[in-house]
Amino acid sequence: MSFLGERKEWVDEALVNWIGHLEESQGGLGLTSLKKSVEYSLTRGGKRFRPVLSLLVGEAFAVAPKRLLPWAVAVEMIHTYSLIHDDLPCMDNDTVRRGEPTNHVVFGESTALLAGDTLLTEAFGVVAFGYESEPQTAVHLIRLLTEAAGFRGMIGGQAVDMNAKTADLELSELMRMHAMKTGALIRVAAEGAALVCGLPEPKRQLCREFGAHLGFAFQLQDDLLDSSETIEKGSYPDKLGLEKTKEKLLEVSAQARECLKRLELTEGPLADLIQMNLDRTY
Amino acid sequence: MSFLGERKEWVDEALVNWIGHLEESQGGLGLTSLKKSVEYSLTRGGKRFRPVLSLLVGEAFAVAPKRLLPWAVAVEMIHTYSLIHDDLPCMDNDTVRRGEPTNHVVFGESTALLAGDTLLTEAFGVVAFGYESEPQTAVHLIRLLTEAAGFRGMIGGQAVDMNAKTADLELSELMRMHAMKTGALIRVAAEGAALVCGLPEPKRQLCREFGAHLGFAFQLQDDLLDSSETIEKGSYPDKLGLEKTKEKLLEVSAQARECLKRLELTEGPLADLIQMNLDRTY
Repeated sequence: MSFLGERKEWVDEALVNWIGHLEESQGGLGLTSLKKSVEYSLTRGGKRFRPVLSLLVGEAFAVAPKRLLPWAVAVEMIHTYSLIHDDLPCMDNDTVRRGEPTNHVVFGESTALLAGDTLLTEAFGVVAFGYESEPQTAVHLIRLLTEAAGFRGMIGGQAVDMNAKTADLELSELMRMHAMKTGALIRVAAEGAALVCGLPEPKRQLCREFGAHLGFAFQLQDDLLDSSETIEKGSYPDKLGLEKTKEKLLEVSAQARECLKRLELTEGPLADLIQMNLDRTY
Repeated sequence: MSFLGERKEWVDEALVNWIGHLEESQGGLGLTSLKKSVEYSLTRGGKRFRPVLSLLVGEAFAVAPKRLLPWAVAVEMIHTYSLIHDDLPCMDNDTVRRGEPTNHVVFGESTALLAGDTLLTEAFGVVAFGYESEPQTAVHLIRLLTEAAGFRGMIGGQAVDMNAKTADLELSELMRMHAMKTGALIRVAAEGAALVCGLPEPKRQLCREFGAHLGFAFQLQDDLLDSSETIEKGSYPDKLGLEKTKEKLLEVSAQARECLKRLELTEGPLADLIQMNLDRTY
């Protein structure tokens, strides 16, 4: 994913810059371990798929990356908090992520929990602060973020994933669960960027649909890559078979391309992003 | 605290109304247990001290409760999420709160964690939605909420409380920790209400100071009431002795009254609230 390179670096820099503003001490009280825990998860690799998507929407409409960065950073903070909380022993109980120990393994459960809470809380502040001079945009972005991350979005999807046996879900239910759990945040990464770009409602709607299709394509590719050795229960290859999952991926990618066509963006980095997802090997 | 009665009912109603908008099912997927978990903690008693404070500031400046309610509700949602997460086994491991089993005892740890995440996330949506027609106010309120609830406020205070031995803290450090952990949210309950009332900056500042003093007085009274049988390590009675803690409570209450005097609110429900805290027995 080398073509993402420079954009990924801008996101990384903006995240490091945000971390730099957290004080390690307040009135003599030490907040070092909480800060280190936040920093650990926020700087530990990751594809930065969501924030780069926001920047690329800006690029497509000739809006400077700087204007998109607060939104991009907030979306990545929400994504990162969700990983920390999902890894906790009471959730998926994962001890390794991206080849390194998970947050709670390094910092302990209570600090990991609070690091997640910090990232979730402060993400809203990043949006409010970053778009302060355009308060209507800021308020709209915060509504998008709540919708994507909250009860009707990511958290709801995670609750379904924890409580239901995904292996028992119908295909339509599985799709709905993924649309909530991972799709919603990818979708608003694109939709919120369209809002920051000041696009009129019909174009914003197309960016929203593009984001939704891309998010689904991303999930399908993740499932295919995870199925290279064994097919996980409840995954799309398990429900559909490998061949049909590959077909679905092509079909959904074509739907994403169709949105770009209607946006008159048939060529360019957003189209390359669809292709990049089709070609990726991790 | 009977004089709070009607205001408390307005808050309760608004919270129940908000819960009513959470769907128990989305595209065939069940969200009943997450909703019930959110509802359980949000409707399980509580003094509603923070949201009633917001309403009383409105009353003092002749602003209708209806305009204050979204802010009041959001603050109570943040307070409630913090109780759910603080009670978790990896934090304080409390099994009983207000005489009833804690959220995770009833719904399990993973649902309790997600219920807390839901309340935190959706609180920002309540503010964004509730003050949509005054976007500048909404953005300012969201910054206040992030400041009070985030790294520099409640979460930071909780991290210090978990990591430091409170018994070893200096008095000034203990005060700072409480100002972050519990004071900040009480302070912004008043300060945010002043903002909704459209007060000019000097009066907002006085409301902020009033809230800070009242929050500290509330903490001192809590510590005194908890010390009726045994004196808890790291509490103010432990650091200062019972008599000096009582003196401190009177001193801080006088500072809160001084703020009201400068706001020309020497008489009225905000002054009654200071007295109510001095008189309360639970």
